[in-house]
Amino acid sequence: MRYLPGEAQHLPGNVSALASYQASHFLFTVADGVATVTLNRPERKNPLTFDSYAELRDLFRALAYAQDVKAIVVTGAGENFCSGGDVHDIIGPLTKLDMPGLLAFTRMTGDLVKAMRACPQPVVAAVDGICAGAGAILALASDLRLGTARSKTAFLFTRVGLAGCDMGACALLPRVIGQGRAAELLYTGRSMSGTEGERWGFFNSLHEPDALAGAAQALAHSLADGPTFAHGMTKKMLQQEWNMGVDEAIEAEAQAQAICMATNDFHRAYHAFVARQKPAFEGD
Amino acid sequence: MRYLPGEAQHLPGNVSALASYQASHFLFTVADGVATVTLNRPERKNPLTFDSYAELRDLFRALAYAQDVKAIVVTGAGENFCSGGDVHDIIGPLTKLDMPGLLAFTRMTGDLVKAMRACPQPVVAAVDGICAGAGAILALASDLRLGTARSKTAFLFTRVGLAGCDMGACALLPRVIGQGRAAELLYTGRSMSGTEGERWGFFNSLHEPDALAGAAQALAHSLADGPTFAHGMTKKMLQQEWNMGVDEAIEAEAQAQAICMATNDFHRAYHAFVARQKPAFEGD
Amino acid sequence: MRYLPGEAQHLPGNVSALASYQASHFLFTVADGVATVTLNRPERKNPLTFDSYAELRDLFRALAYAQDVKAIVVTGAGENFCSGGDVHDIIGPLTKLDMPGLLAFTRMTGDLVKAMRACPQPVVAAVDGICAGAGAILALASDLRLGTARSKTAFLFTRVGLAGCDMGACALLPRVIGQGRAAELLYTGRSMSGTEGERWGFFNSLHEPDALAGAAQALAHSLADGPTFAHGMTKKMLQQEWNMGVDEAIEAEAQAQAICMATNDFHRAYHAFVARQKPAFEGD
Repeated sequence: MRYLPGEAQHLPGNVSALASYQASHFLFTVADGVATVTLNRPERKNPLTFDSYAELRDLFRALAYAQDVKAIVVTGAGENFCSGGDVHDIIGPLTKLDMPGLLAFTRMTGDLVKAMRACPQPVVAAVDGICAGAGAILALASDLRLGTARSKTAFLFTRVGLAGCDMGACALLPRVIGQGRAAELLYTGRSMSGTEGERWGFFNSLHEPDALAGAAQALAHSLADGPTFAHGMTKKMLQQEWNMGVDEAIEAEAQAQAICMATNDFHRAYHAFVARQKPAFEGD
Repeated sequence: MRYLPGEAQHLPGNVSALASYQASHFLFTVADGVATVTLNRPERKNPLTFDSYAELRDLFRALAYAQDVKAIVVTGAGENFCSGGDVHDIIGPLTKLDMPGLLAFTRMTGDLVKAMRACPQPVVAAVDGICAGAGAILALASDLRLGTARSKTAFLFTRVGLAGCDMGACALLPRVIGQGRAAELLYTGRSMSGTEGERWGFFNSLHEPDALAGAAQALAHSLADGPTFAHGMTKKMLQQEWNMGVDEAIEAEAQAQAICMATNDFHRAYHAFVARQKPAFEGD
Repeated sequence: MRYLPGEAQHLPGNVSALASYQASHFLFTVADGVATVTLNRPERKNPLTFDSYAELRDLFRALAYAQDVKAIVVTGAGENFCSGGDVHDIIGPLTKLDMPGLLAFTRMTGDLVKAMRACPQPVVAAVDGICAGAGAILALASDLRLGTARSKTAFLFTRVGLAGCDMGACALLPRVIGQGRAAELLYTGRSMSGTEGERWGFFNSLHEPDALAGAAQALAHSLADGPTFAHGMTKKMLQQEWNMGVDEAIEAEAQAQAICMATNDFHRAYHAFVARQKPAFEGD
């Protein structure tokens, strides 16, 4: 077998800057604090491979330590988001693996979602065209999702004989669109249209295809210009409180917000308000 | 008192086939892997009784072991789904029970929901007309819900002086339609229209009354023709991850999906794809 | 510093009647079992201060023991709900506090939400105009929310350099409007329109501005006329089951509903039904 699942170049886990990172299996750029990840095999609708999975996992793990990235856009080249795990490059080899090999693969793909949820930067998915299988999970694992009316999002694991419980879908999707709608998409594998996605809360907004990239960049830049330490705390607490009781969540927020009140950005905002100016946040 | 709550004929818990099961308190048929449960006292809008509750509980428990049932439709006869616990047959006797007797009853009805959530088959509720009280819970405890515009779904426990916390409603309903809408329905007991139900995610889709049964059967048959072992895993994980943290859910899915990757259905799907054929799933 | 966070008059925790309570920092009236809390600094859009926070906290704690209040309406004077923590009265002093002082403040504000969720009475928020920051949390912490189309609800903590995790928002808001929509509002601080709020399940219904107060009172009075012991149990279980597994929630409801079946209101409802009368609930 050509690839062991999860084997790939490892980014150092403690780099403080990623702007110069040269990605091997997708496009990666950083501009004004916004990193853009573009899946880039448009002739195949940007499928994932063992290599791109593993590099994405390592990249998102590294982003936790990157000082020069404040928000992230994930998108696909050529009018599609991502067609998911490539049938020839991934499904075929998986049918030849033993159980430890299978578990190593499913843990590796799950680790990508864990890393996307653990990095402090908000992740904005810009979704046009096909958004299928693991591609739909990449969108789901993002914090915010912008779509197009023509986009088609399908959790189509069932179509290849698998369960809907892939990379966290049975936990994440019900909280985004509701338990009943999630069950339908996961059991049937049918496509959710862009319009349904907006109506159900999967997409935060829909855009014309040629305006999508600009809208995602604008949103990410506005987040990167905000109090980014506080944004990271918002993201952490959305994750942390997932299965806390209400009272425990309130105490957790009391601590988290007290930390944010000790930041310079909080003071900057107050002084800007008093001076009737717009605050200039610096993320500390 | 005529009935002890929960006393009824007990189906053997380990039968492997239910196609020949003769139900006493509702209609039960099996065709091509789809079991159909039809509440059948149309002149009273299909109320539940101690007997039908207990038989439903035992049936859903037996379904966990039935090899010949791959999906389930629950519906009502005569243009109504279910009017809930019969006032004369259930409410009256309950007013005469002592506390152990009351708890035996509420546990018995709760056991029905537990059994519906625990059996591996997806349950499709086909809801027309009145869907009230425990009837609304039967719909809620299903995996998927098809409705009609004229259907009226009411969690009307409050109307008989009770709380909205019946058979799991305070846990299940908020995850299906959101916490605020669930609170309104549970506090007020008001009817949710079919249109509201679709808009809020309670119903997966609305159908004309005379097309409802056909749509529910078609959906159930398409699920029964799918990778039913994997469907059972999807259902199990939707339940299992209900109150896990995100990272724990991702690990749980890594294990669950690795199991599914070791099934024949996964291999069948791959080989069908390579051969440009439609996979024929067998549920193993 | 003028105020220590959380220092205020303390209502006795065991009073059985609040109708005669004279509030210092907002309007408080009780009529026919419905208490109305009106934030009343309309020239500033009803901001919160250290004093009003603490008095609200103490009031909601006292409501847990008040026998003469069965439902609560929270609203604002003069076409606005609440502008949140006053920048001069709260934000300024906070910038001067040390960490124990900050935590004392965030715990005090969190205690208000805990008290709103812990009192047995359903809380109806009537929201017109500005509903911002901690004001948006007051609405979110209510059980039911009525709004107007022109209302603007903004979790604008990010605008003052803080995180969205304030007073339980990262736990409560995702369960009301979904995880993706909640993330957008919390990261960006943007206003949710009344129409969006109704569509997303934040508002139970929208009303014309001059009909809002009447609609909220009518809803609260209808709840106060219902089986209020059972309503309190509904509220308790919605809270209690927040992060239980489904089976544990069903057992918890079996116990809670058995308790309600031992109340006089349950018997009253049955006997009224048999006599073809409307039940007169008394809350015992």
